[in-house]
Amino acid sequence: MTLNERIAELRERVRQQRPLIHHITNFVVMNDTANVTLHIGGLPVMAHDRAEVAEMVTAAGALVLNVGTLSPDWIEAMLIAGRRANELGIPIVLDPVGAGATSLRTASNRRLLEELQIAVVRGNSGEIGALAGMGGVVKGVETVVEVDDPTAAAKALAQQYRTVVAVTGRQDVVTDGKRVFLVDNGHEWLKTLTGTGCSATTVIAAFAAVEREYPFAAAAALACFGLAAELAAPAARGPASFKVAFYDAIYHLSADQIRAGARVTAVAG
Amino acid sequence: MTLNERIAELRERVRQQRPLIHHITNFVVMNDTANVTLHIGGLPVMAHDRAEVAEMVTAAGALVLNVGTLSPDWIEAMLIAGRRANELGIPIVLDPVGAGATSLRTASNRRLLEELQIAVVRGNSGEIGALAGMGGVVKGVETVVEVDDPTAAAKALAQQYRTVVAVTGRQDVVTDGKRVFLVDNGHEWLKTLTGTGCSATTVIAAFAAVEREYPFAAAAALACFGLAAELAAPAARGPASFKVAFYDAIYHLSADQIRAGARVTAVAG
Amino acid sequence: MTLNERIAELRERVRQQRPLIHHITNFVVMNDTANVTLHIGGLPVMAHDRAEVAEMVTAAGALVLNVGTLSPDWIEAMLIAGRRANELGIPIVLDPVGAGATSLRTASNRRLLEELQIAVVRGNSGEIGALAGMGGVVKGVETVVEVDDPTAAAKALAQQYRTVVAVTGRQDVVTDGKRVFLVDNGHEWLKTLTGTGCSATTVIAAFAAVEREYPFAAAAALACFGLAAELAAPAARGPASFKVAFYDAIYHLSADQIRAGARVTAVAG
Repeated sequence: MTLNERIAELRERVRQQRPLIHHITNFVVMNDTANVTLHIGGLPVMAHDRAEVAEMVTAAGALVLNVGTLSPDWIEAMLIAGRRANELGIPIVLDPVGAGATSLRTASNRRLLEELQIAVVRGNSGEIGALAGMGGVVKGVETVVEVDDPTAAAKALAQQYRTVVAVTGRQDVVTDGKRVFLVDNGHEWLKTLTGTGCSATTVIAAFAAVEREYPFAAAAALACFGLAAELAAPAARGPASFKVAFYDAIYHLSADQIRAGARVTAVAG
Repeated sequence: MTLNERIAELRERVRQQRPLIHHITNFVVMNDTANVTLHIGGLPVMAHDRAEVAEMVTAAGALVLNVGTLSPDWIEAMLIAGRRANELGIPIVLDPVGAGATSLRTASNRRLLEELQIAVVRGNSGEIGALAGMGGVVKGVETVVEVDDPTAAAKALAQQYRTVVAVTGRQDVVTDGKRVFLVDNGHEWLKTLTGTGCSATTVIAAFAAVEREYPFAAAAALACFGLAAELAAPAARGPASFKVAFYDAIYHLSADQIRAGARVTAVAG
Repeated sequence: MTLNERIAELRERVRQQRPLIHHITNFVVMNDTANVTLHIGGLPVMAHDRAEVAEMVTAAGALVLNVGTLSPDWIEAMLIAGRRANELGIPIVLDPVGAGATSLRTASNRRLLEELQIAVVRGNSGEIGALAGMGGVVKGVETVVEVDDPTAAAKALAQQYRTVVAVTGRQDVVTDGKRVFLVDNGHEWLKTLTGTGCSATTVIAAFAAVEREYPFAAAAALACFGLAAELAAPAARGPASFKVAFYDAIYHLSADQIRAGARVTAVAG
């Protein structure tokens, strides 16, 4: 199978297995990421209370931890759910929203990376740079100064925590610290909407739930996500009509479209 | 008046009386259910703090309790608001999201049913089955194994708590434990979006706010909700464009459309 | 420059400076107001924990405090962030959602007005009337009985707290207690959606972040917001399709459109 055929097959696997994606995530994107989970083929659940997260995660195919509107209580719940997920071998996907913007965010993300075995971290260049200690500037939740070398930052962070790091931007970089996938799908409209990074994280989680080769799962997810944006763009008259067309495109994204449109390059490690 | 004429009249009554629907609900659907409340003709308010819920509910026509992202604090607020609503004769509509998925969810919903007089419980087949102790499997917030006999489960739960139970699915069942309404409106697109069950609950609350015959109010609400979905379906190119057309259709849903399209059957008790 | 040319210039300034708008806001509108911030040209961040709000706000161009789903913890965070904003000269825009509906809401908003120097308060007529002690009735979060004289109520509140007050309604009124701007842009569709008042507040914050003449900034923001609604209205087939067209129109709103369509009147003080 070619790489694109493998990506197409993986996208279908999500549809067939319908993995439950347990999110402990921020208030801004809960509705969006629940819908994206459904559209890509999974089942979403949002549950954050310490009294139930360990039980809820047992049914999940993957766990999303997203600190976009964090508070200490929620971080505790993330640790409880995360420990149980680790015990059960359920992959955890971390979205370190705003790492670098405040010390609480940087410290909380470091703690999650240190105390849990994270399968994939997905952030923008500034967030990954902040966690890797390799530059970039985050203002609020947005990178305003890019990291000089996103691949180097991603590799460093991946090696430090033995995880897979996905840096999204004009070109997405996915690495386990050695191998690198570059993903050239995507569209400028994505930057005009809140939470598109969080939604990309959700798609990575859905793919990681059914494919344990996490670097490939993450790269495939980002290719599908970006390709859906490309397919939707002609219908956009602005950000909101783009969003409608984009979600419709995620739902319909087919094996044929992926074979023709995914642009993933595997770089020798 | 025929049944459909009564449903059409009830939908207009909501528009004219504009009842305030006080929601203590989950983070995922707050925006959606606030909009659905407005589109059907009511006024939404979301308020969850123990310091104000008893006061807020006094102005309400109905109270929605939805445990989709529950925590113990919020359950306490639900009990405070619910007790006041009971004192004032304001109907409470309960959405037991994820009952059966975790013990916290099952226990919290049971507690609400035991300590409050609930006017209507609206859930999917797995949630109602879990509360009635009659089977079904809930994964996250979705029924993955249907209850064998949803009408029997609904009747059992209705009798146990002297309430009205609405089970939504391919065919909706509404019962007070004796009489049964079957509702055959609806569309497959509804399953591709998060929170459509929660939105159906909101419409039931708006109808119950202006019609004290709760089994009829719930059946009429579900018929209108499902009919709007049917009317919207031709404009759908995917889940997100369906959602836009669906909300537009709820807003415009007219007496003529209801007379022609509602499909409710009253079954002898 | 004419008034409309100044408004057009200000709207472009937001696009160029991309101010960070730190929101401590309600759960219902977080997604909407984050998107509106992006579409008007700013960067949104939602952060509410006491451990980070003082740090987050230092990077902000403006701070939005919105009590739509308030709880005492969040009010404390608003005070912490607000004090820091005041120290740094960062404008605070307050949205007193539901003031008048419960004593918690009225008291919390009064406390914010007393303990912080608020740059602009934006509310509907009932909310402003409740805070000014000049009548109006709020049911939930909606004005159900209008204040007799919104300009008088706005002036009184502005003078009491040395702030700028914006009352939105059929005609918007903006005043610092002496000068008055009247804004005649807007469209009836705005009333069919939840959170449009909150989104107007966000646009005011984005404008106040780059223009320290706050009465003008608020009036300009409301003119742009209302004008985008007017431009979107022909594409509306209902509330949801209106919302899509409205957000697209905010994003595209151009200097030419503003010069031709803004309807702001400066009334001698």
